[in-house]
Amino acid sequence: MSIDRLQKLIIQHKNPTVVGLDPRPEYLPPHILEAHLTPKAPTLQEVADAYFTFNRGLIDALSDIVPAVKPQSAYYELLGPAGADALYRTVQYAKSKGLYVILDGKRNDIGSTAEAYSEAYLGRIQVGETVLAPFDADSLTVNAYLGSDGIMPFIETCKAFDKSIFALVKTSNPSSGELQDLFCGDRNLYTVVGDLLARISQDTIGTYGYSCAGAVVGATYPSDARTLRKRLSNTFFLVPGYGAQGGGAEDVAPCFDAYGRGAIVNSSRAIMCAWKKSASGDGSDYQQAARGEAIRMQRDIAQVVTVC
Amino acid sequence: MSIDRLQKLIIQHKNPTVVGLDPRPEYLPPHILEAHLTPKAPTLQEVADAYFTFNRGLIDALSDIVPAVKPQSAYYELLGPAGADALYRTVQYAKSKGLYVILDGKRNDIGSTAEAYSEAYLGRIQVGETVLAPFDADSLTVNAYLGSDGIMPFIETCKAFDKSIFALVKTSNPSSGELQDLFCGDRNLYTVVGDLLARISQDTIGTYGYSCAGAVVGATYPSDARTLRKRLSNTFFLVPGYGAQGGGAEDVAPCFDAYGRGAIVNSSRAIMCAWKKSASGDGSDYQQAARGEAIRMQRDIAQVVTVC
Repeated sequence: MSIDRLQKLIIQHKNPTVVGLDPRPEYLPPHILEAHLTPKAPTLQEVADAYFTFNRGLIDALSDIVPAVKPQSAYYELLGPAGADALYRTVQYAKSKGLYVILDGKRNDIGSTAEAYSEAYLGRIQVGETVLAPFDADSLTVNAYLGSDGIMPFIETCKAFDKSIFALVKTSNPSSGELQDLFCGDRNLYTVVGDLLARISQDTIGTYGYSCAGAVVGATYPSDARTLRKRLSNTFFLVPGYGAQGGGAEDVAPCFDAYGRGAIVNSSRAIMCAWKKSASGDGSDYQQAARGEAIRMQRDIAQVVTVC
Repeated sequence: MSIDRLQKLIIQHKNPTVVGLDPRPEYLPPHILEAHLTPKAPTLQEVADAYFTFNRGLIDALSDIVPAVKPQSAYYELLGPAGADALYRTVQYAKSKGLYVILDGKRNDIGSTAEAYSEAYLGRIQVGETVLAPFDADSLTVNAYLGSDGIMPFIETCKAFDKSIFALVKTSNPSSGELQDLFCGDRNLYTVVGDLLARISQDTIGTYGYSCAGAVVGATYPSDARTLRKRLSNTFFLVPGYGAQGGGAEDVAPCFDAYGRGAIVNSSRAIMCAWKKSASGDGSDYQQAARGEAIRMQRDIAQVVTVC
């Protein structure tokens, strides 16, 4: 099972963290931009090529210590077709280095459209007698507001191609409570969403006790995370909000089970932009700086969570 | 204001309908597939080129009678980078023919990621001294589950570049009620979402009384649509669910205001695939068949709604 593979990688590396690959031109070291961009009038293809070079460098520096990466689709879509190509190359390169790839796209729709999204990012498309995998990530983030009609097509694809999804349950942003915390009868909305995910994926539970349908649960609301962890014993958590958004190691701890399993914590900017705080400051050491920050994060979380 | 322009086009054409451009290989007439695809082993680029040829033909056949088109992003993403290119060309061609383009992507995220999505589809990206508009649609569908943090970046882009959004409020699918109908205190969830949209866009109301933040309201729940129409007097409705999903003209009628304004009804497959029911049946007349179905839909809705 795909989610077992993620858990196994986390155990092997003793590191329940995922590195966000969310490039923007200002996050890239100057020497990478200079190597790719035509001064003054760069093309989107050149920016996309610079993104891939940067991502490849990060992946090379991190693939022996972290289990997973999470490219955020928005930053690639912003470059149009060239960005889709950079995203594809990033996914393939990360997989070739043994990393588990969670594509952060928060996709959502119903029926044949939801099928198209799940085929695009997790599955296959058949044209003529040729079968192609357009992106072939290991996992995709989704949004459940449309109800089970909007999630089942993704779960069917997970079953067919051994993949996983993470649906937004309780997000890390300041206004997440405006809708997600609303009380609906006996439960708040995020609990209803969590229960729905658990119900429709209960026939996909793997060796470690987790299903193919994980949940996004923010580090910034640790008491909500604690409640959800107890309630959703078969749901793997993808945890944003550590670092820049204010969550610390003690805040992510409630997301893990008694064995230090069942959750993975994301960090994006702190790792991508670690070079800006390093001694040289010119970005020439961006790989070492990223690796240093990834190790710091691993140790920080290890103070409160022991993966076994 | 962008939403005024949509309403004006609807009034000019006396036609409150939008044509979904959701291509799949099986929706395309055989002669278009044959003209583009290498037999047995077609590439995704060839499929993308066939999609664009099909869309261009539909746009040519419809642009003097319909005000808007709505490409569904999932079907293009399914082709990888080649699909992003076909989507871009479709958006540009539709705009060149005077159509209002609603890009159906149901995007959602927070902070700088939501900004990236809004810049990608509605705004601009600056690289060096060059400013580029990656897709430059008139409107984008979004999902509000993340709360106002997730919607405000899109509204800011609407203000900066004169665009609009449509957020999922009450969707047309059978399971939409699982979350959207839940009672949260004094209102159900879709009403909370609708109220939130109205509140954060109240400073963007145009000549016809509608704001830049519209709502997706399904034709399959006409009594909910009636309640929402009364409550959200400044919110334009994008109405899926007519036709294949079971909604008829009488079901979409409650979405309109007293002047027959404030709503636009979508039809996708019935128009794209009209050629399959035409006399020849071989797709050679797909443009006339699509036009015939679009006129039939216009007349059907005109029986219950008079746009003035």
